[in-house]
This record gives sequence, C-alpha cells and structure tokens, in this order.
Amino acid sequence: PQPHRQSDYEREEEEFVWTQIKAEARRDAESEPALASFLYSTVLSHSSLARSISFHLGNKLCSSTMLSTLLYDLFLNAFSSDHELRAATVADLRAARARDPACVSFSHCLLNYKGFLACQAQRVAHKLWNQSRQPLALALQSRISDVFAVDIHPAAKIGKGVLFDHATGVVVGETAVIGNNVSILHHVTLGGTGKAGGDRHPKIRDGVLIGAGATILGNVNIGEGAKIGAGSVVLIDVPPRTTAVGNPARLVGGKEKPKEHE
Amino acid sequence: PQPHRQSDYEREEEEFVWTQIKAEARRDAESEPALASFLYSTVLSHSSLARSISFHLGNKLCSSTMLSTLLYDLFLNAFSSDHELRAATVADLRAARARDPACVSFSHCLLNYKGFLACQAQRVAHKLWNQSRQPLALALQSRISDVFAVDIHPAAKIGKGVLFDHATGVVVGETAVIGNNVSILHHVTLGGTGKAGGDRHPKIRDGVLIGAGATILGNVNIGEGAKIGAGSVVLIDVPPRTTAVGNPARLVGGKEKPKEHE
Amino acid sequence: PQPHRQSDYEREEEEFVWTQIKAEARRDAESEPALASFLYSTVLSHSSLARSISFHLGNKLCSSTMLSTLLYDLFLNAFSSDHELRAATVADLRAARARDPACVSFSHCLLNYKGFLACQAQRVAHKLWNQSRQPLALALQSRISDVFAVDIHPAAKIGKGVLFDHATGVVVGETAVIGNNVSILHHVTLGGTGKAGGDRHPKIRDGVLIGAGATILGNVNIGEGAKIGAGSVVLIDVPPRTTAVGNPARLVGGKEKPKEHE
Repeated sequence: PQPHRQSDYEREEEEFVWTQIKAEARRDAESEPALASFLYSTVLSHSSLARSISFHLGNKLCSSTMLSTLLYDLFLNAFSSDHELRAATVADLRAARARDPACVSFSHCLLNYKGFLACQAQRVAHKLWNQSRQPLALALQSRISDVFAVDIHPAAKIGKGVLFDHATGVVVGETAVIGNNVSILHHVTLGGTGKAGGDRHPKIRDGVLIGAGATILGNVNIGEGAKIGAGSVVLIDVPPRTTAVGNPARLVGGKEKPKEHE
Repeated sequence: PQPHRQSDYEREEEEFVWTQIKAEARRDAESEPALASFLYSTVLSHSSLARSISFHLGNKLCSSTMLSTLLYDLFLNAFSSDHELRAATVADLRAARARDPACVSFSHCLLNYKGFLACQAQRVAHKLWNQSRQPLALALQSRISDVFAVDIHPAAKIGKGVLFDHATGVVVGETAVIGNNVSILHHVTLGGTGKAGGDRHPKIRDGVLIGAGATILGNVNIGEGAKIGAGSVVLIDVPPRTTAVGNPARLVGGKEKPKEHE
Repeated sequence: PQPHRQSDYEREEEEFVWTQIKAEARRDAESEPALASFLYSTVLSHSSLARSISFHLGNKLCSSTMLSTLLYDLFLNAFSSDHELRAATVADLRAARARDPACVSFSHCLLNYKGFLACQAQRVAHKLWNQSRQPLALALQSRISDVFAVDIHPAAKIGKGVLFDHATGVVVGETAVIGNNVSILHHVTLGGTGKAGGDRHPKIRDGVLIGAGATILGNVNIGEGAKIGAGSVVLIDVPPRTTAVGNPARLVGGKEKPKEHE
C-alpha cells in the first residue's frame, strides 16, 4: 500500500535519530535518577522509535474507557507498517531541533513537546480517516484535544518537518492543508468562516511561519515562505514570501508590498 | 422544585435523540471493534441519556482525590431530577448537528466534544451554586478547566441550544449571561475589565455568534443575532443583528452601520 | 544555600495563611460531605502548607510513567528547604484574594486555581534548572503544560505576589522575567520574535497588569505599573505607568501620552 519503498536516506535518518535519542536518554537517566524509571519505560526499554513513540502516545492519550494497550497497538501498527509516517516523525524531530532555540535534544522533543506528540497522533488519525475508520479517528481527535489542548481534524493534511511550538489552543479544520517545513505557534486557528460548507479551510504552503494567536479563516492560500504575524486575523490570500500582520491582516513585506513592519 | 412539568415535546425530543445515539453507537461498535468496549461503557450499557452522560462526565472529570463514583452520583442526581437540564442537553446536541459542519452524529458530539461536555458539567455546577453548595461548584469548575481547558464560572447563566465549538481556552466570568442558540468559538473570553466589582461581565443575547479568539469585556450587551468577528476586542454594546470586528471593535454590519466587512 | 533566614514576618504570614486554609477546609468539609474526602486528603491530613501543596501538585502532575510519590518528594524537598519559595506561595495566595473578585478564600485558590498551581510548580522547576537538573526541570514543564495548559520555561524568573488568572494558554519563554505583584490573564504570551537567540524574551516589571490574550514579543521592557490591554500585540518598550493597547500596540495612557482609552 506504500507508494514507494523506504529510501536509504530515510532509513539512515531514522536510525541516526533513534540512536541519538537512546544516547540522550541514557545520559539523562544516569545524571538524574529521578527520571531513570520514566526514561526506561518511555525510551530505553524499546527496540525502535516506532515502539517508543507508540508507547508514549498510548500512555498519554489513554483513559479509563480507552485503554493504553489498545492505543499502543493502534499506533504501533500504523508506525510499523508505514515508513512515510516514520519519516514525517523524524523530519518533525529535526525541525524542532533546527527551528526552536529552546529545544535542547531530540528526546526533549519526543518526550515533552505536546505539539510534536499531537501532530504524530493526528497523522495516525488521518490514516484511519482515509481507511474509512472515521469513528475511531474522531475519538482520537477528541483525546488529543483533551490531553494536549490541540484540536486538529483527522481529515486535515499535514506535511513533514512541521513544528507546532508550545501548541496549546491550536485548532485546524477538516479541509485545511499544511505543507512541509511549516512552523505554527500556539493558539493558531486554521478555521472556517462559518459561511461555507465543503472545502472551507486554509491551505498553508511550504515553509510558512504562523505567529502566536494568528487566526486564518476560509479557503485562502498562504503562499510558500509567507509569514503571518502574531495575533493577525487573515481572511485573504497571502502571496509567497510575503508578510501579513494586523486585524484584519494587511500585506506588509515581500515582493509586492514595501516592508514596513515584521 | 421544577417551574413546570416536562412537556410532551421535550419528552419526545429526549427519547428521539437518545434512540439515535444508541443506534449510532451500535453501528460504530459493529464497524470498529477497537471502539466497542468504549461505546459499550459510555453509551450502550446505559438505560438513559442522563445515565450515559453522567457516567461519561464522571469518568472525564474524576481524579485520584475526587472519585468517578462520587461525580457520577452528583451528575445523575442533577440530570434525573431536572428535566430542564436534560432539555438543555438535547438542545445543545441539536445545535452541534445543525450548526457545526464537522459534527457527523449526536454520539460524536456527546462523546467527543469537550465544549459540549464542559457546558453540561457547568450547568450542574450552576445548579449546585444556586443551592448554596459553592465549594463543590467551584471544585467542579476547576476540574472542568483542568480537563477541558474551558473555564466557566458556576454562577454564569447559560441558555439552551448553545454550541461551544472546539472550546479550548473559553473563559466566562461570574456575572456573564449567555442566551439561547448562541455559538461560541474557542479562545473566547466573556470577562471583566478589572475596574468594577459586582455585575461586571457581558450579557450575550439569543442567537449571537462569537468568532474564535474574541474578547468581550465588561457589563456590555451583545444584542440578539449579533456577530462578533474572530479576534475582536469588544468593550461596547453591540446592537441586535449587527456585526462588530477589530481591536478595538467597531460596528460594521446591521441596521445602524453600512456593511463593509464580515 | 538561602541568602538570608526566614524573617519573623514571613513566618507569621505563612502560619496565618495555613491556619486560614485549614479553617476554610474544615468549614467546607462539614457543610459539603461530597468534598470531605477531597479536603481531607489535600489539606486536613497535612501538617504544613508545604506538605499540602506538595501532595496536591504531585497528584495533579503525576502520570503512569512519573509517579505521584516521586513528585511529592521532589516538591516537598524544595518547599521544605527553601523559605523564599514558601514566601512566594503565600504572597501569590494573598494576591489572588486581593486582586481577583472571584476568589472567595485562600483554599479556593490553593486547590482550584491552575494558574496558581502551575506557578508554584514552575518555581520548583526553576530551582531544579539552576541546580543543573535541566532534564527534570523540562519534564516538569511538559507535565505542567499538559495538565494546566500553562507553558512556562523553567529558566524564566517569576517574582512574588503574582496572579495568573484563569491561566489557560499562558506561554512564557526561557529568558523572560516577571517582577513582583504582576497580574497576567489567560492566553498571554511572553515570547520571542523568532529573529534572535540568547536573551530574547520580555522583561515585565513590578505591578504590571497584562490583559487576556495579549502577546508581548522580544526582549522589550514593560515598565513598572504599566497596563497592557486585552488582545494587544506589543513589540516595543512600554514606559512605567503607561497603557498600551491594540495590534500593533500603541501607548495611550500615562505620563508621556494622553489617555484616550483603557
């Protein structure tokens, strides 16, 4: 069912990142006995990144009516069978290290970043959605929203190398699309205007940066490399490599408009 | 203690919606074995909507120091003895189906919408508040805020047919009033200005729509059918059927002002 | 390791507030049997404020991989050995009573205010951070963000008498500093602009009030007694006793600018 086999590059990347994560966890467990049991159960006892993340997500998202073992099996089945999913996870870990100055290690992101964890769980929900397992996908969305305060519809498409920084309050609608290497801060909404059904949510192209609290509404296009200022309310298309700020947002940087404020 | 007996219409509505929920849960449990146990414990094992929702809320809101059985008894006692409370629940389920394009079934809302669940729990807290059981009402408010990231003071009055969509970050103050058929998106604040005590929070009339991230402060009146744009900061009265947008918000649609932006 | 010994005033304050909390809990447990077990385990069974808050935080922040006993020991060790930490807790309890009209008692704040609890836990994480126990400090930050939706970097410095009201969605970056007697509403961000490393977050001086949803970005100075309006986006220094509002924020009150709007 995979469009192509895992490339050598992807396999090496996955192996490199997992080796790093284990080394970091070993170092931290030695220096901090209070974390040893936590690090053993979440990282060091597992034989692969897929098993580690499936265990961690299962534990975070379970409830008294939805058992961690059931979720673990669900996540492990998805991650084990789908190298694209694992490549996206690895690219997200790379993105956090590269683009978030507060990210000190791969394991820091894997274990502690609720935006990262919510995104991985949503990709599994998205897979279930496309397999016509909507009720399960929606139940997962609900658990992710309860536990991480991140509410991304399982039908939304999310690329690779995406950073959800801090992540509290992020809301992404059903027909939204997020490209590769996008950075999204907390409280960002990719929502509908309430005036249309069908394809009604924003399309965020590669390399876009969306500041804290920005609200982007409707089936608008945010072009490649565009920047959306914190607190902006965007109801219009934003051309590539252009900055939009304000409420309602106006275009201020980039090719088509002189830069006055970023 | 009820102002009037349950009407035939209310009884039929309640029965219809509960029958639908059970049919949906049965269908989903059959098509998705991974959800069967969850759906059995939350819906199919219960003899009424009151029991189902009391069990689900008790499980969601419990902690190691506040047991699910105690909460279950508390909710069940409230819902069983108060048909107005149940009618509000049914109207809220109808509202989600009618006004949220992403809501695929009544059971989807009942089981997965934290805005819906927070609102039902707040109505019970409101009942306790009016019975001079403030400490318990405030403890419930705190659990609802922890679990759902929805912080509504138990003294606030909420009408029927209300939709809290996505709901993360909603804050509603002590003297706020929300009418019937109101839709409130996530991150909405109905707060105080910090300059007054007493009656210091907004009054939201029937049929109002409040967009994501809107902040309405002070004892202002948002008239029937008004619309508040996403990200607006509203410090003034808004007349009926009028739209307010921006920071600070200005009136743009409706009878008194020409429409320039919605 | 303490810069000075606990003063008589601090000891008396701590004793007074703890005596009040026990009296409130006893009264509430008597009037509300449904809360008796909760109040016994969180307050009445403990011999000091340090033990009570350590137990409560341990229970709130624990998970299946990070046990409540481990967290209890960690918190109790910090609070028992550091009277400055306890003085900050007492000052925060005083601040909630004095500045939040909805706060009905010290125990209400201690048991129910997630902003208060997140702040106490962050101060312990800050202590760990300064003891070169970064991995544990970051794991705590993550639990606080999951459980309370409050994401404060453990390196951030927070003064005494601070009120985080409602608190959902608060984000405070690594190099931010918050002075004494500051009030911060929900959804407030003290973040970076993404354009600088190093010392890149706001400095909030004593007595500042920051309204709901305000976003303050970059290494800017918010002067003593300044007020930041709800929903503002602040990218500039704000002089003492001056009000800033809007997106982008402009100065409107205070000495240097005529007051036109607060």
